Amino acid sequence: MKDKITIAIDAMGGENAPEKNIHGLSIFLKKNPNLKDCFFKLYGNEQIIKENLKKYNITHSSVEIYNTLSVVSDEETPLTAIKNSKNSSMWNSINSQIVDGADISLSAGNTGVLFVISRMLLKTIDGVSKPALAGLWPNKKGVSVVLDLGANIECDENNLVDFSEMGSALFKSLYKDQKAKVAILNIGSEEIKGTESIKKAHSKLKEISRHGDFEFKGYVEGNEIFEGDSNVIVADGFTGNVALKTAEGTSKFLTDSLKESLQENLLSKFSLLFSYFSLKKFKSKLDPRKYNGAIFLGLRGPVVKSHGSTDYFGFYHSIDLCYKIIKGDLMNQIKTNLSHIDGKN
Amino acid sequence: MKDKITIAIDAMGGENAPEKNIHGLSIFLKKNPNLKDCFFKLYGNEQIIKENLKKYNITHSSVEIYNTLSVVSDEETPLTAIKNSKNSSMWNSINSQIVDGADISLSAGNTGVLFVISRMLLKTIDGVSKPALAGLWPNKKGVSVVLDLGANIECDENNLVDFSEMGSALFKSLYKDQKAKVAILNIGSEEIKGTESIKKAHSKLKEISRHGDFEFKGYVEGNEIFEGDSNVIVADGFTGNVALKTAEGTSKFLTDSLKESLQENLLSKFSLLFSYFSLKKFKSKLDPRKYNGAIFLGLRGPVVKSHGSTDYFGFYHSIDLCYKIIKGDLMNQIKTNLSHIDGKN
Repeated sequence: MKDKITIAIDAMGGENAPEKNIHGLSIFLKKNPNLKDCFFKLYGNEQIIKENLKKYNITHSSVEIYNTLSVVSDEETPLTAIKNSKNSSMWNSINSQIVDGADISLSAGNTGVLFVISRMLLKTIDGVSKPALAGLWPNKKGVSVVLDLGANIECDENNLVDFSEMGSALFKSLYKDQKAKVAILNIGSEEIKGTESIKKAHSKLKEISRHGDFEFKGYVEGNEIFEGDSNVIVADGFTGNVALKTAEGTSKFLTDSLKESLQENLLSKFSLLFSYFSLKKFKSKLDPRKYNGAIFLGLRGPVVKSHGSTDYFGFYHSIDLCYKIIKGDLMNQIKTNLSHIDGKN
Repeated sequence: MKDKITIAIDAMGGENAPEKNIHGLSIFLKKNPNLKDCFFKLYGNEQIIKENLKKYNITHSSVEIYNTLSVVSDEETPLTAIKNSKNSSMWNSINSQIVDGADISLSAGNTGVLFVISRMLLKTIDGVSKPALAGLWPNKKGVSVVLDLGANIECDENNLVDFSEMGSALFKSLYKDQKAKVAILNIGSEEIKGTESIKKAHSKLKEISRHGDFEFKGYVEGNEIFEGDSNVIVADGFTGNVALKTAEGTSKFLTDSLKESLQENLLSKFSLLFSYFSLKKFKSKLDPRKYNGAIFLGLRGPVVKSHGSTDYFGFYHSIDLCYKIIKGDLMNQIKTNLSHIDGKN
């Protein structure tokens, strides 16, 4: 456990920044009034940040502002960003881990640019060839870590093994008393199913899990992700991204159809009165803002990406996520896990 | 339009066969009392089929029984099936297209075996190297054809182009006055996104759609599948299968959570009274049995696979699907479409 946690925040990234970012921070501070171990470095336009800190009554000495001159736009491409964005709030919030002692960086800005700058500044961990984007998904029994959600289109068996080790380190940093159960996302449960990389990763993980500290559950199919029998679900970035977006689309389609049905006549509208609290609880349980925040794993420092379009409540959850994974000592968990792989570290 | 349609049914395939299969047929016959152009060949144990025809009051002269001696079990593997299943109801219902003049075959039995036998007996269409499994998905505006749902783990650009042509032929056979809008499932909407095969298929489809009879909409992401702006969504079998199963899993997770919420207290239970008809309509609209039936495309004759675990109502829908796609002249639509691809036919 770390005794001092410093979170670097790109205050200017995402829709409605910096207001939503600072509003989100104010929620975090309100929910954790006695936190003595957590410090924040806000990168962005000092003047506007100050106005917003005032608006949200943030007077904590734990909050420091670092003035930066530009903001990475949504139109910026990863190719040109390295040249263009050295003075940006995003760049400096990542660089904060190198020059200002931050433990983790958080941004709701341009994902592609964030990934490229993070990788260039922080470098990958020795022995990891591809960093991955991990997300938290609700399921029947709690939450699973799913990765890669889109950082790497093509992955070989070694990448999938790395993802398993890093994903279970993330899971352990969040839920310290639980042993991670790892599964590979596939199109069948038999060992002979799937691509060559998947089959090779299966046999490697079977071997590694004998002396590693996670349980390997074999393959999981798309319909089993939400059952919650596996806590860490591993896929190449193409497959993971399709699964993520398909789940989002299905969820939107169903809830929209339900909403329509429940408002189609007076009788069903009336029913909303009686089910108000239950439906509110249902909505709250599955509120995507609660799972806001994808984690770049495999770099020498962790970077969290908030949805650009989330609001202050979603942003609050990604601050909370940053705090929890550093408190849970993510980076050391990753190192320990990777050391189980022969020839690494 | 065909003036005589003959459907060969594996009466013994799937859970609760042959009862559910014949019960499903009785629903089809009831819903289409004046159909003069449709004939059925039922393959399976003659005695049991006869008992069930009696039970469901089917006395139509359009129904013929072909006695077969065995049933393909769920444990049979595609490798051993070719040797073991020549006398089975499944084999003979497919072979019916060659020896008994059927236009289409329908089975709810073992998918892997069905695929292997179909491919061996019916052969692929000239110029198509990989047949694909296509499904119908509900969306906000109607129904989309999605393929490949799992027949081919790895696909190159030519396969994806074939899938587009065959998928839009299927769409056109079902909705004759609509022009199919085709899109490739990808992880971004920009032309530079995706795997090499996807990018090459994109540029080929852009070219072909200029003189083909479908509109090419470019890429679609997982969350857009349900928007309904594309009618034909194309992916390799691995990706398509993950998307299908993830959508199923998300849907189950959400509806289970909703059910739980609406039954958690007296007040919310009470609300069910008022929303009964609206929820029933909601459920009915998204009832998976209505979309039951995946179509093997790319063989010289069409084969429809019903879910093994569906009930009579789901099986009725796959009989209805068989009728509609033959009525809509699927095989000629495919031929016409494929002729747009240079060097084919």
